Amino acid sequence: SRELFVITYGALVAQLCKDYEKDEDVNTCLDRMGYGIGVRLIDDFLARSAVKKCRSYSETADMIAQVAFKMYLGVTPSVSCSSAAGNEFSLILDKNPLVDFVEELPAERASLCYCNLLCGVIRGALEMVHLAAEVTFLQDRLKGDAVTEIGITFLRKAEDRKQKRN
Amino acid sequence: SRELFVITYGALVAQLCKDYEKDEDVNTCLDRMGYGIGVRLIDDFLARSAVKKCRSYSETADMIAQVAFKMYLGVTPSVSCSSAAGNEFSLILDKNPLVDFVEELPAERASLCYCNLLCGVIRGALEMVHLAAEVTFLQDRLKGDAVTEIGITFLRKAEDRKQKRN
Repeated sequence: SRELFVITYGALVAQLCKDYEKDEDVNTCLDRMGYGIGVRLIDDFLARSAVKKCRSYSETADMIAQVAFKMYLGVTPSVSCSSAAGNEFSLILDKNPLVDFVEELPAERASLCYCNLLCGVIRGALEMVHLAAEVTFLQDRLKGDAVTEIGITFLRKAEDRKQKRN
Repeated sequence: SRELFVITYGALVAQLCKDYEKDEDVNTCLDRMGYGIGVRLIDDFLARSAVKKCRSYSETADMIAQVAFKMYLGVTPSVSCSSAAGNEFSLILDKNPLVDFVEELPAERASLCYCNLLCGVIRGALEMVHLAAEVTFLQDRLKGDAVTEIGITFLRKAEDRKQKRN
């Protein structure tokens, strides 16, 4: 049923583009919706994957890429750690199934993060296992980048979170 | 990935409920979106199912239930013909996976056809194989009915269609 999901997702993004003039508002809305989805999806994920508790950020990032992406989107991004502190990771997708039916973004929607729902889903799901994270698109093939890259920054403490936001 | 689809669909319906005050407008919008999805999904369906051309409305209804529903939603509705003319069918779902995460409709949304997207999808897909049809929910477990029933009325000629609308 992936095609039905992918096309329905396109209809959702199109609806939000009707609702909001600014790309930024669409992106925020997708992220917020995704958050709500992640918060609910985590139970399904834990039940079906039967994975054990991760012992490090690195294990968590691998779990998202190798188990969760595989389970829900049928692809496995490669993972790289991009900070000496060991709390920043990139998920790199050569192929993004969510954009299978999208040729390119219309010129007037150049700042749209079409797949921003995914960032929200990851953020919401992580929060439910008590991991605060910032999740954003760093590269996007829809915008002409060579790959699609999702950045995950785990925030250790409330303090980190504040700093990041400021 | 069905859970992701089902929860994302819920987010789409919730968004439309924010956008439109009247249930009727949400239903229309879901149907219209579904139509656009069906128009695109039919190619995927024909390619993946490798089915042959149906020779009757009855065969077409069976194909929708046994192949398309199975492929995209993982369930197989039962089919019954409900007119002597042989152009009206009911797809009856004991279990509707699209509402897996919905407990009940809020009181102020009592007229919402939560799954109305499906009607549009069927209508759009049929139109692409040159079959005009009216597709509506006749019963809905979310509204307290014993089963969920989707009615498909094949419209033979432009004349039929007009009569039905009037």
